[in-house]
Amino acid sequence: MLTLYYARDTISLATHIVLEEVGAVYSTVRIDFKSTEQRSPEYLKVNPKARVPALITDRGILTETPAMLVYVAQQFGRPDLALLDDPHAFAEVQAFNAYLCSGLHINHAHRMRGPRWVDANDSHSIAALQRHVPVSVTANYELIERDLLRGPWVMGERYTVCDPYLFTLAQWLEQDGVDPARFPKVIDHRRCMSERTATRRAIGQQMAD
Amino acid sequence: MLTLYYARDTISLATHIVLEEVGAVYSTVRIDFKSTEQRSPEYLKVNPKARVPALITDRGILTETPAMLVYVAQQFGRPDLALLDDPHAFAEVQAFNAYLCSGLHINHAHRMRGPRWVDANDSHSIAALQRHVPVSVTANYELIERDLLRGPWVMGERYTVCDPYLFTLAQWLEQDGVDPARFPKVIDHRRCMSERTATRRAIGQQMAD
Repeated sequence: MLTLYYARDTISLATHIVLEEVGAVYSTVRIDFKSTEQRSPEYLKVNPKARVPALITDRGILTETPAMLVYVAQQFGRPDLALLDDPHAFAEVQAFNAYLCSGLHINHAHRMRGPRWVDANDSHSIAALQRHVPVSVTANYELIERDLLRGPWVMGERYTVCDPYLFTLAQWLEQDGVDPARFPKVIDHRRCMSERTATRRAIGQQMAD
Repeated sequence: MLTLYYARDTISLATHIVLEEVGAVYSTVRIDFKSTEQRSPEYLKVNPKARVPALITDRGILTETPAMLVYVAQQFGRPDLALLDDPHAFAEVQAFNAYLCSGLHINHAHRMRGPRWVDANDSHSIAALQRHVPVSVTANYELIERDLLRGPWVMGERYTVCDPYLFTLAQWLEQDGVDPARFPKVIDHRRCMSERTATRRAIGQQMAD
């Protein structure tokens, strides 16, 4: 039995959606970021990185969204969700996910998490990081819109774990200061994702929790 | 036939080492960062991200180190190098690689690549980002030393693609202002990696190129 540690309005939604897609049996534990519960001694025993999501399995703890997405697909007999049986296609899935993980998500994080990269008392630099987020995140969406998102799904006709990952990040597009009118494919993808049963179930569970 | 686009003293060494580990037949093209060749019109046609490494296959272009490392292992019949046949172990490999990709490598990049995250003319903030690198990168190595690097290899007794990835980043540990004396396991791992034939071959090729 799996346990997903998540927090609302975080990247953990992506893994949550894929758990629903594969019909996994799992429980959830909500971590409250407002009270910085992710840094509590109890949670640090679960995940010393002080981040969500974390997935507890009967063999230990798994972290990092790109790893967890592929794990759920592979473990629950849905390698098609990551195109795992075709090394080249799988590498394209993985490359997209790595771009979200180390590019788009990181750039977004500079809006709220400045003290990861500058001294927490340096208000000038923290404000400078925030001001640059619309520039850096818009550049990410330009590449996604032009080159990476094939449509209707990220990998084309086949729905994969790339889709809930992009969807989760695209929730924050307007807050990141990006003009949605410039990215019609991304916005259309976000709408299609929001209509899937698995997406509605995962969001519904997080809202009810 | 594969073509690896790389630049010296960059993360592309990790994929280069794994190509040597599996005995792949490949050619290399060196991109010169000093003349910002990665932003030349010719290279942008290869990789619109203006980054290295990029791997040209007979089906297209692959990017992003975590994707390429697993691709080489899977494509060349060495799934053991990523523990690909065991979903949980593979997820641990992937989680480690994601931590390097979106954590350690990103933190390191704030030393030279400040204008990705603040205005290029804001010298105060760019200096602030540089000053914080020893703090953020040291925190990454603390987690690696204490929790992630099992020894002798990252995943324990089994050598995997995590190892050349960590090795490549650990080349920059001193330049990032990290005290090597605090991380004996990481330093021992770096030494073991430097003695492998595949590592010597990849470095030798890049130096001769």
